[in-house]
Amino acid sequence: MEKYSRNQRVSAITKILMENPNKIINLIYFTELFNAAKSTISEDLVVIKDIMNRLHTGRVETITGAAGGIRYIYGISDEDSKKFVEGLCENLRKSERIIPGNFLYLIDIMYNPEIIYKSGIILASAFSNKHVDYVVTVETKGIPLAYEVARILGVKLVIVRRDNKVTEGPTVSINYISGSTKRIQTMSLSKKAIKKGSKCIFIDDFMKAGGTGLGIINLLKEFESTILGIGVLIDDVSICEKLVDKYVSIIQYKGVDENQVAIVSSTKMIK
Amino acid sequence: MEKYSRNQRVSAITKILMENPNKIINLIYFTELFNAAKSTISEDLVVIKDIMNRLHTGRVETITGAAGGIRYIYGISDEDSKKFVEGLCENLRKSERIIPGNFLYLIDIMYNPEIIYKSGIILASAFSNKHVDYVVTVETKGIPLAYEVARILGVKLVIVRRDNKVTEGPTVSINYISGSTKRIQTMSLSKKAIKKGSKCIFIDDFMKAGGTGLGIINLLKEFESTILGIGVLIDDVSICEKLVDKYVSIIQYKGVDENQVAIVSSTKMIK
Repeated sequence: MEKYSRNQRVSAITKILMENPNKIINLIYFTELFNAAKSTISEDLVVIKDIMNRLHTGRVETITGAAGGIRYIYGISDEDSKKFVEGLCENLRKSERIIPGNFLYLIDIMYNPEIIYKSGIILASAFSNKHVDYVVTVETKGIPLAYEVARILGVKLVIVRRDNKVTEGPTVSINYISGSTKRIQTMSLSKKAIKKGSKCIFIDDFMKAGGTGLGIINLLKEFESTILGIGVLIDDVSICEKLVDKYVSIIQYKGVDENQVAIVSSTKMIK
Repeated sequence: MEKYSRNQRVSAITKILMENPNKIINLIYFTELFNAAKSTISEDLVVIKDIMNRLHTGRVETITGAAGGIRYIYGISDEDSKKFVEGLCENLRKSERIIPGNFLYLIDIMYNPEIIYKSGIILASAFSNKHVDYVVTVETKGIPLAYEVARILGVKLVIVRRDNKVTEGPTVSINYISGSTKRIQTMSLSKKAIKKGSKCIFIDDFMKAGGTGLGIINLLKEFESTILGIGVLIDDVSICEKLVDKYVSIIQYKGVDENQVAIVSSTKMIK
C-alpha cells in the first residue's frame, strides 16, 4: 500500500477537516486512508491543532468514547474579524449605495462569496456550542448567508417561501405582520422540511423590527420546533423596539446622514 | 519573529488556499505571514501540490510573471464523483419523493450543504478553465448551488428575481415563456447587478425545456453580457426539445415509473 509523509498527511487532513465542519470523524478513517498507525495520525493532529491555535483560524476538538473522533470548528481571529467588519462598514458608507426611497443597496454584499464566507464564520461562531438541527431563513437575500452558516455548522438549511410551490408538496402557511410596515404577509414551508422537536437558528441579511423573526418563531411552533437564536448581518438600530429579544448581529445601521452616507458601525459583540 | 515548522506551514497554506479558491496569491503573502524564505514556501507548495495530485482533490497552479503567484482550483476525484452521483441517484429513487402531481420532492437535496458542496465542485469543474465574471441564477431553489459554484470559482453571484423589490433600485425586467408550461413569466434584475460586457454562467437546480435559461440569455443581452455556459444538477430528459443547446448536468431524470420510483441516472459527462 501507498505510504504518505507527515507533511502530505497534514495537508490532506487539514483539507478533509475543512470540508467536513462540525462532523465527528473517527481516526480509523484516517488510518485507513493513509495506511498509518493511530499514533501517527494523532501526532499529525497535534500539528494541525497547534497551528490553528496559533493563527486563531478555528479549532480541532477531540471527542472521546465509542462514537468519538475529531471535529473541526470554523473560527476567525479577533484581528481578522475586526479588519473584516471595519472594511465592510467602509464599503457600506459609499454614497452610491443610497437608492431612491433612502434604501441601502446591499445586493452586491449579500451575494459576494468572500463577504458571506467571513460573515458566515462570525455568525456561526455564536452558535457553535449549541446543538443546532437546522438553519432557517426566508427567501431571498439572506439565502447565501444562511447557506454558509448551515455549511459551517454542518447542518441542513431550510428556506421559508413567501408563496406556495406545487413542487414542495403539502405546506404549512402562516400570516404575520411586518413590524416596520405593519402589513400582513404570508410565509409557508413544506410539511416535510423540518422534523418535529427540532432546534433551529434563524439567519437573515437585515433586521428592521424583527417581524420576520417573530413570524418564523410562530411558523416553527406548527412544526413543534423552536428557535435557539437569531443572527443577522445588519441590524437597523434606528428601529428601537424589536419584536424579538435575543439576536446577534455583525453591523449596526442607524440610517442615512445629511451627506447621504449610511451611518454604520461594528456591533459591540463582535470584537 | 515567530517561526513555523514545515508541517505547520503546510497545514496553514492548505487552509488559506481552500479559503481563496481561484485567486492568485503572491508568494510574498506567505513569506511575510510565516517569516520564511521564498524557497522555503516553494518547497511547502511542492508538498501540497503533490498530495492534491495523488488524492485528486484539486490542483495548485503556478502563475508566472509580475502579477503571478499560486492559485488553488477545487477538484474531486473520478472515484469520489462517481460514488457521490450514484448515492444521489439512490436517494432520488426513494418512493416518498413523489408528491401529488407526480413532482419530485427535491428541497432536502437542494438545501443540503453536503450535497450542494460536492455538486458545486463537479459543476464548477466544467467552467474552471473559462474566465467567468458572474454566476447567475433565478430564485429560489437553485440559489445554494449557484452560490457554491460562485464561491468555488471565486466570483460573484447574481440572483435574478421573479418580482421587483424596492430595495434593489432601478431594475431591468423581461418577459419570457416557460418552455414546459408555455406561460408568460417575468424576471428582473437590478441595473447595478452586472457590469457591461460580462461573461456569465447560469446555474440552476432543475432543467425542463430550458425556458428559464433562454430567458436569462435574453435578460443578459440587456446588460450587454453573455452566457458562457449553463450547468444544472438535474436535467429532465423526458423533455427532448430543449430551448438551449449547450449545458452540462449531473443527473438525468426520465420521469416516474409504474412503481412510483423516479427514473434517474448519472449524466454521461460525469464519469
